[in-house]
Amino acid sequence: MSPHPDRLLPADPSTREVARRLFADVAGLPIVSPHGHVDAAVLAEDQPFGDPASLLVTPDHYVTRLIHAQGVPLERLGVAISGEPSSAKPRDIWRIFCEHWKLFRGTPSRYWIESELADVFGIEQDPAPDTADALFDELSATLAAPEFRPRALFGRFNLYALATTDDPRSALAQHRHLTEDPSWTGRVIPTFRPDAYLDPNSPRWPENVALLGVSAGLDAGDYAGYISALEQRRAHFVATGGTATDHGHADAGSEPLPPAEAERVFTAALAGTATPAERTAFRRHMLSEMARMSCDDGLVMQLHPSVLRNYHGPAYRKFGPDTGHDIPVAAEFTRSLRPLLERYGTHPNFRLVLFTVDEDVWSREIAPLAGFYPSVYVGAPWWYLDTPDAMRRFRETVTDTVGFYRTSGFVDDTRAFCSIPARHDAARRIDCGHLARLVVEHRITEDEAAETARDLAFAIPKEVFRL
Amino acid sequence: MSPHPDRLLPADPSTREVARRLFADVAGLPIVSPHGHVDAAVLAEDQPFGDPASLLVTPDHYVTRLIHAQGVPLERLGVAISGEPSSAKPRDIWRIFCEHWKLFRGTPSRYWIESELADVFGIEQDPAPDTADALFDELSATLAAPEFRPRALFGRFNLYALATTDDPRSALAQHRHLTEDPSWTGRVIPTFRPDAYLDPNSPRWPENVALLGVSAGLDAGDYAGYISALEQRRAHFVATGGTATDHGHADAGSEPLPPAEAERVFTAALAGTATPAERTAFRRHMLSEMARMSCDDGLVMQLHPSVLRNYHGPAYRKFGPDTGHDIPVAAEFTRSLRPLLERYGTHPNFRLVLFTVDEDVWSREIAPLAGFYPSVYVGAPWWYLDTPDAMRRFRETVTDTVGFYRTSGFVDDTRAFCSIPARHDAARRIDCGHLARLVVEHRITEDEAAETARDLAFAIPKEVFRL
Amino acid sequence: MSPHPDRLLPADPSTREVARRLFADVAGLPIVSPHGHVDAAVLAEDQPFGDPASLLVTPDHYVTRLIHAQGVPLERLGVAISGEPSSAKPRDIWRIFCEHWKLFRGTPSRYWIESELADVFGIEQDPAPDTADALFDELSATLAAPEFRPRALFGRFNLYALATTDDPRSALAQHRHLTEDPSWTGRVIPTFRPDAYLDPNSPRWPENVALLGVSAGLDAGDYAGYISALEQRRAHFVATGGTATDHGHADAGSEPLPPAEAERVFTAALAGTATPAERTAFRRHMLSEMARMSCDDGLVMQLHPSVLRNYHGPAYRKFGPDTGHDIPVAAEFTRSLRPLLERYGTHPNFRLVLFTVDEDVWSREIAPLAGFYPSVYVGAPWWYLDTPDAMRRFRETVTDTVGFYRTSGFVDDTRAFCSIPARHDAARRIDCGHLARLVVEHRITEDEAAETARDLAFAIPKEVFRL
Repeated sequence: MSPHPDRLLPADPSTREVARRLFADVAGLPIVSPHGHVDAAVLAEDQPFGDPASLLVTPDHYVTRLIHAQGVPLERLGVAISGEPSSAKPRDIWRIFCEHWKLFRGTPSRYWIESELADVFGIEQDPAPDTADALFDELSATLAAPEFRPRALFGRFNLYALATTDDPRSALAQHRHLTEDPSWTGRVIPTFRPDAYLDPNSPRWPENVALLGVSAGLDAGDYAGYISALEQRRAHFVATGGTATDHGHADAGSEPLPPAEAERVFTAALAGTATPAERTAFRRHMLSEMARMSCDDGLVMQLHPSVLRNYHGPAYRKFGPDTGHDIPVAAEFTRSLRPLLERYGTHPNFRLVLFTVDEDVWSREIAPLAGFYPSVYVGAPWWYLDTPDAMRRFRETVTDTVGFYRTSGFVDDTRAFCSIPARHDAARRIDCGHLARLVVEHRITEDEAAETARDLAFAIPKEVFRL
Repeated sequence: MSPHPDRLLPADPSTREVARRLFADVAGLPIVSPHGHVDAAVLAEDQPFGDPASLLVTPDHYVTRLIHAQGVPLERLGVAISGEPSSAKPRDIWRIFCEHWKLFRGTPSRYWIESELADVFGIEQDPAPDTADALFDELSATLAAPEFRPRALFGRFNLYALATTDDPRSALAQHRHLTEDPSWTGRVIPTFRPDAYLDPNSPRWPENVALLGVSAGLDAGDYAGYISALEQRRAHFVATGGTATDHGHADAGSEPLPPAEAERVFTAALAGTATPAERTAFRRHMLSEMARMSCDDGLVMQLHPSVLRNYHGPAYRKFGPDTGHDIPVAAEFTRSLRPLLERYGTHPNFRLVLFTVDEDVWSREIAPLAGFYPSVYVGAPWWYLDTPDAMRRFRETVTDTVGFYRTSGFVDDTRAFCSIPARHDAARRIDCGHLARLVVEHRITEDEAAETARDLAFAIPKEVFRL
Repeated sequence: MSPHPDRLLPADPSTREVARRLFADVAGLPIVSPHGHVDAAVLAEDQPFGDPASLLVTPDHYVTRLIHAQGVPLERLGVAISGEPSSAKPRDIWRIFCEHWKLFRGTPSRYWIESELADVFGIEQDPAPDTADALFDELSATLAAPEFRPRALFGRFNLYALATTDDPRSALAQHRHLTEDPSWTGRVIPTFRPDAYLDPNSPRWPENVALLGVSAGLDAGDYAGYISALEQRRAHFVATGGTATDHGHADAGSEPLPPAEAERVFTAALAGTATPAERTAFRRHMLSEMARMSCDDGLVMQLHPSVLRNYHGPAYRKFGPDTGHDIPVAAEFTRSLRPLLERYGTHPNFRLVLFTVDEDVWSREIAPLAGFYPSVYVGAPWWYLDTPDAMRRFRETVTDTVGFYRTSGFVDDTRAFCSIPARHDAARRIDCGHLARLVVEHRITEDEAAETARDLAFAIPKEVFRL
């Protein structure tokens, strides 16, 4: 196992040759990671990563879901039941993973893990039943070495900035700890993720609202206080280096309510007397409010609707959220976002990055919107779509309508810190392959392609996410 | 006309070279045909195929529809009016077909028929107005030869197993005849296709239910008897070698009704007093019941919703069903199947293969579901999508999310027995081309690709359909 | 800047070689332009084109929208406010355009403008900040020369026929002027575009209906008079050389109303008392009426639904329609068109070309319909989809189901007269590339590909649009 220098580049020799040159030029650029789920504590505390299973298997729902689909219960892969740590032994989990390595052929998980094992950890053998124990031992030893601690890797990965995803109530102590640590020069910034505070359909919304007020030092028991608390918490994120918010709801609805109606529904929802339709209307109203606040405080708004979260009830009740059964549904942006864009779409301070896991809307809705509104950017292929072939389709469907400069740049969206370089490396290779094709088809010059490749890898995400 | 050995393989020379090696390795593997519409009587009775028109034109609605779209009435192509045999002469039908051969350029029908004519029947000339009569005569003579009878071809085609599609009331006499014939060793198995007995919106549903009861030797006049009759008929299919059911409805809805409500609606529907909404709710309930029964008897459930059947009323009234005007609509699986998957999705005995003619749902819904549920498989590209380029898109959109081992393997879905080898040959070529690309892009090794190609061609469909 | 002779041809050398031969054979064929928005006055009056900005920037909403998305107000690009000519100076507009040239990399606008500048106007430099003034001067001088007047270019472009888009009330004086001009031999024909007269939801519909009556010399104040007026105006278009109608509505609904109900809703809508649902029902009824009239008068019906027009209210109120913010939504044809196709789908005189900006429906709905109904053709990729990669996807998804001979041939749909050759050139290159792939994959012979390429470029659109 040693990843080939030409991997993911187009097969056609003349195209590959151009792609190789383009990639050589961007391979070493710093990584901008504006959207992901690494815990700031990983860097603040700088503890060694544990064993191979807890590094590569258990927390990665791309991996656990596909092994689960072969009939292996999630608890055997170390997934906690009702928050109780799993009794599965790391070595056993790792063995199961190695036995199922074949399943991942053709998937991005295979690609990322292979790159990560080889490039980050220097592993030279494929996972397989007969290599499982040796790999486990070798990796465990490697992980214990000081140069494989998170902060050392942060430097080695050449990370320009890393955004985490955070609860609006968070004091952001870890981020502040990093900022105040004189021995640390990296940039780790929070992202404001308020879903559970905006949607009265969320479990424990009334409780969340109350706690939000506490965190802001305000009484959020009335609508004005609630709005103030949100504004105050956003200000705290801004003060701690945050540049963006992140929103994932059942749909992209954004119709605002008249103020009196918003207040009435808020009160009813807190009291538990709002109808489901009212709760949904309030959530859409709050998306509009978030846009309004972004015009004021400049936080870049990220939106990724239309996934049914926690789809399999029995697994959700046993294992909790983010355990591999969030399933997409058809997305709609054009009608849903019209109220918001009518109000804020041309506001000079507003910025909205639209992500989808329904690729139909790339050419049909998102690119047409981003090609008119100065505020709207086409979010990179994400989640189920951050794969080599889907990233290709993204460029092929979106560039035609909107060029390169209305797209967001790659986001790795990962919980797996050590996979960050592999993910950005893959995205850069795909972009260079796409640009090389345009060169070979005489649609742009190689100089233009080279500049564009550099912009896509660094300048564009830095600019779009205000980094 | 002699099909090129490299046909359908990718153009890039290095990719083609790998694809050629992969294909050489699987070209001769036995054919697994788990889903199709060949009549078991073809093999049980082993009569010679008739003339070229009734072999290649009249029964193939892919062919007749495209000639119809040029303004040729279906009756001139031999399609029966109200079940009365057409008065069109086979030679005249064949001439019309040859005159319209140009229309099929780029379509899979062109590819299949060309392969079939050359590889099965040794024809060396293209269909054309000036070759029509000679081809008709040559093919007619060939079809009369003993080595072109169905059983001889079954052996020559190297069919490991052939599934037919059957009415739940069928005694399956032809299948039994084959099983009991000591001179016959092939495997021809029935598939349980109960649509017309599950959906009270079907024409003649009350009559169908009564006849179902008769076939089961039970009174299906009450709900309990109806359910028992279905279970009894499934048992008969299992006893006759069946391994699967097949379901095509207007949507994939699967919400079960409470028992008392199911009973009430059943009674109302039999009496003709159920509302359309109640009839639809009952049909969805029965899909859930089919899943429940599959957990018990192990029949693999195949589902392919979202086609408007018999779209053109005048043609339906004149020619009946399956005459080329079933038109797809947008498909939805995520929400529709949730009730069913909540109940049975992780049942160790349950298996559900999801087909679509709306390719949007491959990456958006079906692959995400099959990547979590041990019971769910991504059905192969089917019907309007079993074409070279759509099969490529299938692998490109599905593999990224779910790999190769959660897909079903190819299904030919054909009424045309003699086209079976050509269809599987095409699918194997496309799969080898896709795998070769992954090799040349250094995403998997050639050894892995070779093993995967073999698994896709044989081991996977054999396993998925419990053959 | 000199467009490469191989541009847009596939990268693979053997495929490119075939594509080159196919393209050489069709590059010089006359251009059939059956659908576009050039004003007939351009040719009737034959005035020189003005300056570069008013030729290439201001009227092209593909261009202005993408520069607007960088934050440049539309008025700075010369877009008129409330119909008042913009005060922006052409040279300043041109400078802004040149500064933003980089944005267009990878887009069809870049491709078309580059081809147009080089091939039509002999420009050898790229637009850029430091070339802006020189290019402006050079282009201005060129545009003043007699050989760059519209009629001279019409001949040089080798236009077989050019269809415009016209108001049903238009006397078509410019078309008649051209027909009656003995010095003019070109064919410029009108297209009947009645949206604003069919949809009671349109602003000023009652006023439009009254004026329609005036133009027909009839009283359109009752339903019978309104229908007669439409028939009379269609007859006027037929008499002036028109061969087609063009329809763009919010959806493709076509359910006819019973005559008495149609009359009742018409009267209520005129009186302003119809409900929104009634107005929509009437619009769908009128689509069915248009089909009925097409059966009588032979005008080819073009339909392109599912775009939200004038999406951004503030821009619409300031700048009016067609200013770059029409945004697509999901399209549906199967259910919507069933009533219409049941009645007229097999009528020997009826012809319906279906366009979409939602590419999902190509393989799911439009190709299946066009593969059965003699009246239905798959409209070429259009608007947001008339781009190199989308045109490729079109052939890849549509040909499989329906071959080449149920597609419409390319339509340029442009307001920019001088871009017509570049657009058809691009389409021919993509078609030749697609056909070359089929040859290299041994799916069709090169002779067949050559004939098909010629048919796609000329014979097919000539036949489909009855030219």
